[in-house]
Amino acid sequence: MLVNNKKYCSIWSRNKKVFIIDQTLLPHKFKITELITIDDFKMAISEMKVRGAPLIGITAIYGVAKSMQQNDSMASLNQAVKTLQKTRPTAVNLFWGLKKIETILKNTPKSERAKVAFEYADFLAKRDTEFNENIGIHGSKIFTEIAKRNKSSSINLMTHCNAGWLATVDWGTALAPVFKSAEEGLNIHMYVSETRPRNQGASLTAWELQNQGIKYSIIADNASGYLLQEGLVDAVIVGADRITSTGDACNKIGTYLKALACKDNNIPFYVAAPTSTIDWEEKNAGKSIKIEHRDQSEVLTIAGLNSKGTLEKKLELAPSGSKAANPAFDVSPSGLVTKIITEFGAFSPNKKNLLKLKKLSDKHD
Amino acid sequence: MLVNNKKYCSIWSRNKKVFIIDQTLLPHKFKITELITIDDFKMAISEMKVRGAPLIGITAIYGVAKSMQQNDSMASLNQAVKTLQKTRPTAVNLFWGLKKIETILKNTPKSERAKVAFEYADFLAKRDTEFNENIGIHGSKIFTEIAKRNKSSSINLMTHCNAGWLATVDWGTALAPVFKSAEEGLNIHMYVSETRPRNQGASLTAWELQNQGIKYSIIADNASGYLLQEGLVDAVIVGADRITSTGDACNKIGTYLKALACKDNNIPFYVAAPTSTIDWEEKNAGKSIKIEHRDQSEVLTIAGLNSKGTLEKKLELAPSGSKAANPAFDVSPSGLVTKIITEFGAFSPNKKNLLKLKKLSDKHD
Repeated sequence: MLVNNKKYCSIWSRNKKVFIIDQTLLPHKFKITELITIDDFKMAISEMKVRGAPLIGITAIYGVAKSMQQNDSMASLNQAVKTLQKTRPTAVNLFWGLKKIETILKNTPKSERAKVAFEYADFLAKRDTEFNENIGIHGSKIFTEIAKRNKSSSINLMTHCNAGWLATVDWGTALAPVFKSAEEGLNIHMYVSETRPRNQGASLTAWELQNQGIKYSIIADNASGYLLQEGLVDAVIVGADRITSTGDACNKIGTYLKALACKDNNIPFYVAAPTSTIDWEEKNAGKSIKIEHRDQSEVLTIAGLNSKGTLEKKLELAPSGSKAANPAFDVSPSGLVTKIITEFGAFSPNKKNLLKLKKLSDKHD
Repeated sequence: MLVNNKKYCSIWSRNKKVFIIDQTLLPHKFKITELITIDDFKMAISEMKVRGAPLIGITAIYGVAKSMQQNDSMASLNQAVKTLQKTRPTAVNLFWGLKKIETILKNTPKSERAKVAFEYADFLAKRDTEFNENIGIHGSKIFTEIAKRNKSSSINLMTHCNAGWLATVDWGTALAPVFKSAEEGLNIHMYVSETRPRNQGASLTAWELQNQGIKYSIIADNASGYLLQEGLVDAVIVGADRITSTGDACNKIGTYLKALACKDNNIPFYVAAPTSTIDWEEKNAGKSIKIEHRDQSEVLTIAGLNSKGTLEKKLELAPSGSKAANPAFDVSPSGLVTKIITEFGAFSPNKKNLLKLKKLSDKHD
């Protein structure tokens, strides 16, 4: 998608070098960073220079590829996988991707490992983009129908966190249908929930929409219920970090509150995600997903631009000595999810549809 | 309640001078300000140096008293009432208090007006404190019962915004039962929702609890649903800016989301407010309450202490040029409210109880 009218992806490789956009500096500063050592990759993921379930998975595989370039031994492979696995506990794509590349490389001659890993990462990046564009196509049909039903050429949508192109390689998940519908001429206005504590909505989603020329209003996370009560929103669309085989969606903390408010006000709640986000092993209604608890400083401080135009990284918000709790994700039970929008289409998360999706997604492997 | 182990109220008069704590500087700076002109009072309310429905009402009456001190004509009275009425649109106590003092002063000889207005403001301040202490007594019984039922000497509570002593003259509404139970030896841990966009939770509620020696964890507003899902909270207690005669509670934006999550997880949701917060004229299920929409800069910027210990008042959070929507309150329908805790006791908000409350509160006048 666009940055200052030029096309970018969130991660790319060129001549076996790997580049990312440092998302911790957005929206105030646009900086491209090269990742070289396994430590670069580890820090990029754990400090959220790259974030979003699909992007984390692909970054990790590029991390393995770079490791193999530097040392193609089994010990180096094991070390890389072990290090990267520990960076973030909730996104299923990370574990899925690392397991896959580990299996492939174990059966690859040493001298070929770096090449194979790069090819696999490039392939996944390309496939991620295609899948997300498909999510965009399927989701945009839904938005067009809603607008048609309302006898309008415009639509008001709400999203949470950032499930845009910055959370993937390109297009995004929740925002893919937004970008697609906008391309097709639908007049979109987005309510962008700021998404404390890390403000991915106010910083990243708003930045993406601004660069793409789509209208938006940032809201405090608290305002979502009121806007839904007042009928000011036609649909809510979010991404997911993990979806269980029963259709429960684990996503950024606060998503569940929006799902509840949609249900209470009879407004559709869509979860957009590639089928790789579905954890087919996970059956226990989301109760057993390990929820990441992040450092309390994320709640007690905030980053932003001061009056002199300097980026303040840790503005203190609370009385000195305060404690904070900081769970990073919550689970929206499938009963609150209207449809899951995947690369194969949009499906109500019932047993029959989920089985169908499993069969379709098995063909990817 | 306590500030650095010394007893304070949020507003007080001494020798016909009126003093407030400037709440826009908390928790970083504790500053006492004298309010003199009608403009001082107007700005104190509209800029939220004082806030919270009960405190706004009493501040406005002190404002009328100071106006009468300076000019005791009917024109001056009308001007003062008109100016103060326009400061905040949602809190019922403001209109109720101004209407009342206007009626009283119209029937008071000119030379007596300042004295009568001061006496009335002092009387209301004293009565507010008594009522809130009663809310504390009734609420603390509920908390003690919950702890007993859990066979525990501790309880985990959650609140939203600040309905502590800073929102009233003393004791607070939602926090009165917390302070009372703590006095009585209950071991309390509070989850304090930061309450974007103005962060009254993270700044004011946390500051009150810290000064009172009560344990707390600040959370992003988004985290409330997860904590309720996980059963980490025994009850949620909030204040109200206005309650309809049918029991719908209008309170700080985001309250409705907590009420929904309580219902979904079968956790009690209490609204603590003196009966003066109930608007007996308001019958339309909360649909006709005028919701204040505040300036977008509250969402797009934030205040806090920078690394040098200086208070940054407007740290920018979003891409330059972003727009924001900023509704300040929402309505939690009575069906989501377990009990309204008043100075007369705790009542489920059904028709019969609300009628009983009306009869009891009519005796105040």
